[in-house]
Amino acid sequence: MISITILGSGNVAQNLFEAFLAKDDVSIMQVVGRKRSSLSYFKGRVALATFHEELLLADVYIMAISDDAIGSVSSKLSLKGLLVHTSGAVPLSDIKNHERIGVFYPLQTFTVGKLLDFRNIPICIEANNAESFQLLKRLGHILSDTVANIDSNKRKALHLSAVFVNNFTNYMYIIGRDICVQNELQFSMLQPLIQETADKIRAMSPIDAQTGPAKRGDLKTLHAHLHLLKEKNQREIYTLLSNSIKARLQS
Amino acid sequence: MISITILGSGNVAQNLFEAFLAKDDVSIMQVVGRKRSSLSYFKGRVALATFHEELLLADVYIMAISDDAIGSVSSKLSLKGLLVHTSGAVPLSDIKNHERIGVFYPLQTFTVGKLLDFRNIPICIEANNAESFQLLKRLGHILSDTVANIDSNKRKALHLSAVFVNNFTNYMYIIGRDICVQNELQFSMLQPLIQETADKIRAMSPIDAQTGPAKRGDLKTLHAHLHLLKEKNQREIYTLLSNSIKARLQS
Repeated sequence: MISITILGSGNVAQNLFEAFLAKDDVSIMQVVGRKRSSLSYFKGRVALATFHEELLLADVYIMAISDDAIGSVSSKLSLKGLLVHTSGAVPLSDIKNHERIGVFYPLQTFTVGKLLDFRNIPICIEANNAESFQLLKRLGHILSDTVANIDSNKRKALHLSAVFVNNFTNYMYIIGRDICVQNELQFSMLQPLIQETADKIRAMSPIDAQTGPAKRGDLKTLHAHLHLLKEKNQREIYTLLSNSIKARLQS
Repeated sequence: MISITILGSGNVAQNLFEAFLAKDDVSIMQVVGRKRSSLSYFKGRVALATFHEELLLADVYIMAISDDAIGSVSSKLSLKGLLVHTSGAVPLSDIKNHERIGVFYPLQTFTVGKLLDFRNIPICIEANNAESFQLLKRLGHILSDTVANIDSNKRKALHLSAVFVNNFTNYMYIIGRDICVQNELQFSMLQPLIQETADKIRAMSPIDAQTGPAKRGDLKTLHAHLHLLKEKNQREIYTLLSNSIKARLQS
């Protein structure tokens, strides 16, 4: 049995709470927020506390809070157990004032009100000693099939990669939707294509999966598209990405 | 019963062939290629012919050929039936020398050797007369739940939108993979994130789904990422897309 306390109340905190709550091998001691009013999601389901109160003993304290807050929150706490954060971008050393520190980073995008199955979400762990590392490894495997030893530098690169495949991909969806709206088309028509684009690269490298006018060097279509795009920003993105695809796939 | 002939031998031709072959309401008269040797995929499963031979009568002739070839191939044929192409980017009027013409555009990305279920692939149809349109509508519904009346201008916009959500999204996957390779990380770790990014927008608008340092205005992470990116092209894309997300979501 591993005892944990979750610090934070947002999407990641809620998702971790539900995932751990369903496991017999984990006991959730408390969920901790800035104010009691921020913890309404958890009310009646677990013991609650604020950062100003003394916290119960737990094996692992998980900070599922914003990147900026990790330094200041950790410096104000003084906990006996292992204190970890869940961020892709923040180095281990940002956790202050504690002897045993670590990282427990689930590589996934979390949405308000959407609970995900952690079984296939990679958990990237790091710790400042071997015992803590083994504890996080055990904790990770309770949730997920994939628990990976990723140090702060590699995690930063992984997070950067995630920005491209998640944040920037989602922005491509926004532009696709904007073009649909401007032309009175249903964006939902593109959903099967979006789905298949993601599915395709399970079985093949994205380099082999690349298609389209830029890859083919189809200047006629490239010019027709630029002619259609009225917004300067859309034209800039279209031009830069088309040129990049051409250069990347011919190198 | 609708009789069809498929002109072409690539991914789209193969996918249409398999999908129609499984349907009792469609009979495939012939598959037609430049040379017999290009038709090996279909050998022994259907009657074959080349563009130089006289073709059997069919209700619908489907050109699943490259955009550039649609004008020249259609101008050399002289068919009694309805002649359609399957391209997103080519206007109906590019089909030459025929009285009854149309478009039968499956809005999806097709891959060598990967057969897709057409049931949820939108088929965008257009024709130069009402009777042909009805025929294509019937043919479309044999394959798919979604058959949409999309004229050449709207189809061009839809195809442009598809370039963003498919071609450019796939290029984001390529950069994500490049960053993984450069940092000795497994790209497969990002697969669940890629999948969830696509799944997420089934239930919510991509505008609401946008997350990340650019949206949050998290300058610290944005600068750290730029510092990590060594390739000029990756830096340009990171900067342009981050600035675009900031501008788009604050407007």
